[in-house]
Amino acid sequence: MNPYEYIDANCQDFVEELKALLRIPSISTLSEHAGDIRRAAEWLRAHLKTIGMTRVEIFETPGYPIVYAEWLQAGDDSPTVLIYGHYDVQPADDAGNMWQSDPFEPVVRGGNLFARGATDDKGQVFTQIKAVQSLLETGSLNVNIKFIIEGEEEIGSSSIYPFIDEHADLLSADVVVVSDTSIQSLDQPSIVYGLRGITFLEIEVQGPAHDLHSGMYGGLVHNPAQALVEILAQMHDAEGHITVPGFYDRVVALDEAERAELTKTPFTLERLKRETGVSAPWGEPGYKPHERIGVRPTLEINGLVSGWTGEGGKTVLPAKALAKISCRLVPEQDPVEIDRLITDYVNTITPDTVTAEVRPMNRGGWAVMNLNSAYMQAAVRAYEFGFGARPIFMREGGSIPVVVSFQDVLKAPVIMLGFGLPDDNLHGPNEKYSLECFERGMKTAVKFCQEIASL
Amino acid sequence: MNPYEYIDANCQDFVEELKALLRIPSISTLSEHAGDIRRAAEWLRAHLKTIGMTRVEIFETPGYPIVYAEWLQAGDDSPTVLIYGHYDVQPADDAGNMWQSDPFEPVVRGGNLFARGATDDKGQVFTQIKAVQSLLETGSLNVNIKFIIEGEEEIGSSSIYPFIDEHADLLSADVVVVSDTSIQSLDQPSIVYGLRGITFLEIEVQGPAHDLHSGMYGGLVHNPAQALVEILAQMHDAEGHITVPGFYDRVVALDEAERAELTKTPFTLERLKRETGVSAPWGEPGYKPHERIGVRPTLEINGLVSGWTGEGGKTVLPAKALAKISCRLVPEQDPVEIDRLITDYVNTITPDTVTAEVRPMNRGGWAVMNLNSAYMQAAVRAYEFGFGARPIFMREGGSIPVVVSFQDVLKAPVIMLGFGLPDDNLHGPNEKYSLECFERGMKTAVKFCQEIASL
Repeated sequence: MNPYEYIDANCQDFVEELKALLRIPSISTLSEHAGDIRRAAEWLRAHLKTIGMTRVEIFETPGYPIVYAEWLQAGDDSPTVLIYGHYDVQPADDAGNMWQSDPFEPVVRGGNLFARGATDDKGQVFTQIKAVQSLLETGSLNVNIKFIIEGEEEIGSSSIYPFIDEHADLLSADVVVVSDTSIQSLDQPSIVYGLRGITFLEIEVQGPAHDLHSGMYGGLVHNPAQALVEILAQMHDAEGHITVPGFYDRVVALDEAERAELTKTPFTLERLKRETGVSAPWGEPGYKPHERIGVRPTLEINGLVSGWTGEGGKTVLPAKALAKISCRLVPEQDPVEIDRLITDYVNTITPDTVTAEVRPMNRGGWAVMNLNSAYMQAAVRAYEFGFGARPIFMREGGSIPVVVSFQDVLKAPVIMLGFGLPDDNLHGPNEKYSLECFERGMKTAVKFCQEIASL
Repeated sequence: MNPYEYIDANCQDFVEELKALLRIPSISTLSEHAGDIRRAAEWLRAHLKTIGMTRVEIFETPGYPIVYAEWLQAGDDSPTVLIYGHYDVQPADDAGNMWQSDPFEPVVRGGNLFARGATDDKGQVFTQIKAVQSLLETGSLNVNIKFIIEGEEEIGSSSIYPFIDEHADLLSADVVVVSDTSIQSLDQPSIVYGLRGITFLEIEVQGPAHDLHSGMYGGLVHNPAQALVEILAQMHDAEGHITVPGFYDRVVALDEAERAELTKTPFTLERLKRETGVSAPWGEPGYKPHERIGVRPTLEINGLVSGWTGEGGKTVLPAKALAKISCRLVPEQDPVEIDRLITDYVNTITPDTVTAEVRPMNRGGWAVMNLNSAYMQAAVRAYEFGFGARPIFMREGGSIPVVVSFQDVLKAPVIMLGFGLPDDNLHGPNEKYSLECFERGMKTAVKFCQEIASL
């Protein structure tokens, strides 16, 4: 039996195994789920042993544990593939009753597996694990394999950076594979070769020392919610350009060749509507839709809260108002510098009658990969095999800052071997993973290892 | 024993009785407290029977019950005083851990009784009840008394307006007394002769159909939180004037005589700091602090919520963003017209890439009373007796829309016989009622009845 036949024979069982992992609500943002985080790490340790990894270890960190596993029996002359993933997931709060089923009770509907983490990233990292298992079980594994699976990706990956620095030998590899992105469609695979960086900040405006009666003080005491919305409104101009001074200074303009390549990224209004429900796109004039996402930076409000947010009314003049914002960054923007520019700007435009505090929370760099490396070309052939079509190259709007760390510390090229679909709704309600992607993904990952072995 | 001696002899017991009422968390805004609302109404019914009211009745309404009580044995030739109050309270959410004691476990500290509702309005309506009891127990009550105590004041009083219309005969009175405002200080009593109107609205901006990943769609899909802050920011100019077209059209300018009278309202920056913690006032240029509160309209943000508001970060592009706003209105503004102006303006400035809905929630008119009526002058003498100083006349920033209904339907003058203090922190944490105000208030209320009897 070859590994592809093994996948065909066992795919149903693999789905059931994945469901068990998805049932663990390992939400890293909410500290009350710390126990679930650990359960997910322990589940992976046990599972990686089961499939035949020769060393499996949980490394403690100041934050959540990192799961490491290796199988090095291909020998020193064979290349080593380091596979990265994360087992933590986004919260699944359901204020709008949008989830059609319990986010932590996975169900298959219409060929899709629905659960929080189905595609981001438990389902995708599990695709890699099952590919390795299929190679091992059929005696076909001719490369060395290392796994590093962390539990803090959704909260800034703060523990993995020092871990990579301190364990550069343990993690040393010829190529790093990350399965945490999407392809264009089942018929049109794609390889992400650019990721935006990110910085996440809180802006808190403080007015009076405590909530006041809006009748007794309204008009005389500056309302911090009003001050906050006026500060935030000054961060974009009427066309959607970011107005923080210096924000665009380091942004590199695309050359025409790259613009032309990126134009292959399909975009239709119909698809945007289907995926998001909006009737029209928005964004910077002069940039095509995929450019707005892939090569232009953003400044987004991710959360807003002030005063009375419950049922009905409370005529309060709030003591404080909080915004959570994040910027997606592109070459050559520096997250630390962007934090400083935003902080300076907020301080400049905050009126004297309130105080504003800007709190940088976490950040990560952007990455752009070499399209012509042997590993990238191996990935192209693997997708052609797994999905039956030559992949296009894309820039992705999301951020996977650990990619930068792998490149810089391990000096290894990173290949984004993503198997999600654009409508997988990661971070939103009804997150899903296509079972077709799961199966094709396993075969693509197997093929990638075989291509690497014969380089 | 005269009623004043009776008050002195029983004041401690009265405080204990009031504590029992304050222990009931009758929060009208939160539907889960519906049972507590009913408990508070039942408590009042029982208590009003105990003090000797001859008819006590709970009237059901489509919302929360209205407690009615009467004692009419002064006879047809004697004047009738209708005393209004409310037994519902604001929420006591304590996000900032500001409450020094449980809001529903009243405690006395430093001569003040701390609890939600201590001053607004359980403590003040209880002051009136105990004044009537003191008159009854000492055989000194020479006017007819009616009480109407509602449970929806903090959520717009929607049931009491039709109730007043339908029960105009039952409620008929020569004068209506409302104890739900503050005096300037223990040494400087004051009578509120003007109240601002109010309208409370929600503005909800809808973007995508569900929350999106801010990396995958940020820059391409209009963020409704950003759209909302830009809409809200366009509601004031840089100086704090409201920019909703037509908003000020009906606002009456004060004549110089009234401006001069109002100038007697003391204001010091030191006091503002002490009461609110802010280091500087804010507001419309060209208006004195008490004018900004008393005679100028406002548009305030009372609540804001969008996206991820929990611990840490979630890089979401939210589906919707909600603001709760309210306007305080002055003569001759019309709340219904203001709702329409705001709705029209929001519709005008909302970009096509999102949708905005303006939902008027509740509203009430402003009121200005005749300073020269015999009843107002009786109130002046009552305060002089109770507090030892001649009261000044003030315009209040808050809203008690039912006052307008009493004036219009019952054709009776309304006298604001308030006993709160400016730092009572109603609607905020650590709400209190001064026990000195409680005692002086009872004596002032007794004196007012005696003055009315001899008109």
